[in-house]
Amino acid sequence: MSKQQLVVLGQSAGECCPGLLTAPLDEDQADTLAKVFKALGDPVRLRLLSMIASRAGGEVCVCDLTPAFELSQPTISHHLKLLKQAGLIDSERRGTWVYYRLLPEMTDRLAAILTRPAGAAS
Amino acid sequence: MSKQQLVVLGQSAGECCPGLLTAPLDEDQADTLAKVFKALGDPVRLRLLSMIASRAGGEVCVCDLTPAFELSQPTISHHLKLLKQAGLIDSERRGTWVYYRLLPEMTDRLAAILTRPAGAAS
Repeated sequence: MSKQQLVVLGQSAGECCPGLLTAPLDEDQADTLAKVFKALGDPVRLRLLSMIASRAGGEVCVCDLTPAFELSQPTISHHLKLLKQAGLIDSERRGTWVYYRLLPEMTDRLAAILTRPAGAAS
Repeated sequence: MSKQQLVVLGQSAGECCPGLLTAPLDEDQADTLAKVFKALGDPVRLRLLSMIASRAGGEVCVCDLTPAFELSQPTISHHLKLLKQAGLIDSERRGTWVYYRLLPEMTDRLAAILTRPAGAAS
């Protein structure tokens, strides 16, 4: 995710209580946020993200992700690249393999964006 | 959203603490959840949702939504239909106009799904 995207999402998240449910998003905020949700809008990417996020130790080798899918290594790598571009995961190459980890700042931000302001709960 | 989708999302949300960050999603859960995130993965739909969700009174006439966009009424209606199919909003026709409101159960569920389990916060 670009620095610009982080800035825009940061603005929409405000100090604590963000924008989606509390005020109309402007076009820039909507463009940025839509890219992240689009990255989540695919079942393979959601399964990859859940495998990475739930792994004890916080890191998963791509070699442990691929066998869970009936998809080619390049296809899996493409999905991982989209999750990384959305700011949801990061990666590090060590030796032969690439290791992936969750960037919880982004999922925290999305959770905040989707949380109703205090007092609005039914 | 179909009853089946609600059941699957309900399962993944568990009693309180759901699946995306705590355990690998299975294929059904991922398919269902991806449809909702896909509905959110478009800037026009995000702006529509934020306009509906943030409206005092909780309800917006489609006649008040359309002027905010340089898009045709049928295009706006198509986006609203996708948000409705995803279980994010509901609608009611009264006289000439259709009125939209947020279904907060779904955004609550997504927020929970994206929230880290207690003790995992960094």
